[in-house]
Amino acid sequence: MKLLIDEREDTYLVFEGKDFHTKYGFVKADDLKNAKPGDMVESNMGRRFHVIEPDVSDFMRKAMRGPQAVMQKDAAIIAGYACLRSGSRVVEAGAGSGVLSIYLSYVIYPEKLVSYEIREDFAEIAKANFSKYKIENVELKLKDIYEGIDEKELDAVVLDLTEPWKAVEHARKALKVGGYLISYSPSINQSRQLAEKLSGFRYETFECILRNWKEESMRPDTRMIGHTGFITVARILSR
Amino acid sequence: MKLLIDEREDTYLVFEGKDFHTKYGFVKADDLKNAKPGDMVESNMGRRFHVIEPDVSDFMRKAMRGPQAVMQKDAAIIAGYACLRSGSRVVEAGAGSGVLSIYLSYVIYPEKLVSYEIREDFAEIAKANFSKYKIENVELKLKDIYEGIDEKELDAVVLDLTEPWKAVEHARKALKVGGYLISYSPSINQSRQLAEKLSGFRYETFECILRNWKEESMRPDTRMIGHTGFITVARILSR
Amino acid sequence: MKLLIDEREDTYLVFEGKDFHTKYGFVKADDLKNAKPGDMVESNMGRRFHVIEPDVSDFMRKAMRGPQAVMQKDAAIIAGYACLRSGSRVVEAGAGSGVLSIYLSYVIYPEKLVSYEIREDFAEIAKANFSKYKIENVELKLKDIYEGIDEKELDAVVLDLTEPWKAVEHARKALKVGGYLISYSPSINQSRQLAEKLSGFRYETFECILRNWKEESMRPDTRMIGHTGFITVARILSR
Amino acid sequence: MKLLIDEREDTYLVFEGKDFHTKYGFVKADDLKNAKPGDMVESNMGRRFHVIEPDVSDFMRKAMRGPQAVMQKDAAIIAGYACLRSGSRVVEAGAGSGVLSIYLSYVIYPEKLVSYEIREDFAEIAKANFSKYKIENVELKLKDIYEGIDEKELDAVVLDLTEPWKAVEHARKALKVGGYLISYSPSINQSRQLAEKLSGFRYETFECILRNWKEESMRPDTRMIGHTGFITVARILSR
Repeated sequence: MKLLIDEREDTYLVFEGKDFHTKYGFVKADDLKNAKPGDMVESNMGRRFHVIEPDVSDFMRKAMRGPQAVMQKDAAIIAGYACLRSGSRVVEAGAGSGVLSIYLSYVIYPEKLVSYEIREDFAEIAKANFSKYKIENVELKLKDIYEGIDEKELDAVVLDLTEPWKAVEHARKALKVGGYLISYSPSINQSRQLAEKLSGFRYETFECILRNWKEESMRPDTRMIGHTGFITVARILSR
Repeated sequence: MKLLIDEREDTYLVFEGKDFHTKYGFVKADDLKNAKPGDMVESNMGRRFHVIEPDVSDFMRKAMRGPQAVMQKDAAIIAGYACLRSGSRVVEAGAGSGVLSIYLSYVIYPEKLVSYEIREDFAEIAKANFSKYKIENVELKLKDIYEGIDEKELDAVVLDLTEPWKAVEHARKALKVGGYLISYSPSINQSRQLAEKLSGFRYETFECILRNWKEESMRPDTRMIGHTGFITVARILSR
Repeated sequence: MKLLIDEREDTYLVFEGKDFHTKYGFVKADDLKNAKPGDMVESNMGRRFHVIEPDVSDFMRKAMRGPQAVMQKDAAIIAGYACLRSGSRVVEAGAGSGVLSIYLSYVIYPEKLVSYEIREDFAEIAKANFSKYKIENVELKLKDIYEGIDEKELDAVVLDLTEPWKAVEHARKALKVGGYLISYSPSINQSRQLAEKLSGFRYETFECILRNWKEESMRPDTRMIGHTGFITVARILSR
Repeated sequence: MKLLIDEREDTYLVFEGKDFHTKYGFVKADDLKNAKPGDMVESNMGRRFHVIEPDVSDFMRKAMRGPQAVMQKDAAIIAGYACLRSGSRVVEAGAGSGVLSIYLSYVIYPEKLVSYEIREDFAEIAKANFSKYKIENVELKLKDIYEGIDEKELDAVVLDLTEPWKAVEHARKALKVGGYLISYSPSINQSRQLAEKLSGFRYETFECILRNWKEESMRPDTRMIGHTGFITVARILSR
């Protein structure tokens, strides 16, 4: 895989072995194959592209996505507040299209991320994404997390669910003491209902708002994403 | 080390081998020693404390701090947008009191974080923090990063400097193609001056605003941190 | 009345006829009496004060306040979105300490603002404020607005109530077609319950966030007011 | 004029004397003429519309606009922080397409708003708007406010200019002591340059951010206007 970036800063994730077609002409497979990071390739119509190696942020952005896929800001905050790193033991539910899974599995690598998803159609999209980006440390379980969590002594349980409160008692048993339950949901009412179940946890709920600026004119962008989700970070103090 | 949490959710980081004194009485060294995560200990005045193992977020919060130490939200965003994980090769400057270093070195462990700091007084605080929290994978260099970066083929250069633009040419040489220059600064004017030097990079500048909510009353807190810093994320496309 | 401003930009609302005492000494009554807007007066300890005429914004800031008194930003937005000006016919409830009343009565002057308040203690504070700042166009009614609104053909009904939805049917009858029901409340759950009753109205709910900047360093203040209240603006389309 | 609102809450400002055509059919001129506020009219294709009297907020929204016309939130904040009401003496510059003028002249009515505009094309748009909405208390001056302000003893000078600092000395002479200079500009760098000239004023700079919520799902809108302008409110303490 390579990431191509044109002069307008549009990015293209391209796979080896075939020509890359764009409305600005095509780049030959051989040119792509021979390009090293930092090189430029040119389409037959003269459009030039920087070539670099893609990383996990590109996979997240380019993955097939459902309507509510987690943004990079929230993925970063979730991993950061759960103190994840290589070896962290994490269960996630629901996988959805797998965008958050891509990031979490990257951070805890080579540890396996266990990802619950009840809907087969979503699981198929997630699997296709993992396969496309060669992500091998996700174990996708077609199971309802509201029914229970098989794993034990987890460092973190990450929930992106409609009714996260239904998973709290399972998370309580599955987490090691001091571990994190993190839940992401669009409505503050979900956070409220979740919080009601969090006795024995120390928790807070916040939103993370990213506001982009134009450096040269020293002003924020006119339009912005005003809301993605509320994040509840809950640390279990005892069982 | 153990983390004690009382009923008001105040936290205390305590070290083995001596009694823990608080205004609510003291907890005996032996009780602390014998307590396992999830247990409770009690002071001689009857104050009860949950006991858990501290993690990197506690170290960041409890570290001796300068006035402008990076908050967890910004540390998480920086690590996330630089796609850091175990093995990532990172140079940071300046170390300051070492709060960001604590987090970055945790994420890239066991890889060593290289941290530049020109001021000896800051370096001493940082060293004391690393020693206190037994962080061994930071190499602290008492050097001016405006003079150059010794390392090569880095995944990321993270700047918390007054004049970050003075380090851009050094970062350009030190980064691998596709690597990240991330700069954190309080004034948008610093971001502007930095951006002027970023030809050859693909970059964006944003602020990350965390807004805490009261779950039960479904309202944000009355007071909040309105600003910490602007973050510029710049990815190098070629050299 | 005069407004004194010292070199630190602290302001003092002083009344004629007596000396003005401060920790920086006192200013003689005669000096205050003779000072014209734009003059300076000096305390016996050499502290100098600008003298200007106070206006309604000073009255709002200096009024005796309850814990939740409306801020100038919200008062301005409420008056603006209700399209208030001289002659607008407005009912407000509850008066609370009368801070919002001070502003609304100023804008619609010489029309009388009718202000409902059920609690006698609050009504007393409000009355004391109106008297102190010589505000004569507020009619304070010690009545429960949940029981009904006496007035008809109003341009606006402004609610700062715990259960604003209980006043909707009364507002519906009291408003002229096209008039505004504006409600201000701390919890989004109150806005939700209000909205459920707003059939026949065209409405929106928003929060107004004011973020102060340091001009010279081109950065926002570190601390800010993160939340005051949610504002629902509802315009009645038919009865 | 009448304001029509359909079931999707789209609004249409219609003028008497002719049929109102829409993609949902047309409403006959006679039906429009006979409709009273609160009535409904129906198009020949069965689309139904509420009829109410338009107010100043509708005029602002429906006016022919330049790209940067002031939004209602900022107009409300400007009028509120300048303590404007009937009789306030105000100079505004530049008029632009006259959207802010529509609101300011409404609030200070019957006092005349004096509005400076150097560009003839903008002045033409503004004039057309005033005429369309029958606004008679604006005196539009085709003059450069950087050259001077003819008026004296003003309550407020409102600036929406590229280089507001060039008007400060003129505003200083034109304002009564205690009066307000209010400037609105997209870049914080403009606020900085303005502030440098504000000796003798007490001032603050802020942004006013409006964030819309979905009441039923208790969540903010996904997309929002992230930025319009920075507002500097400066009160003159002496001359």
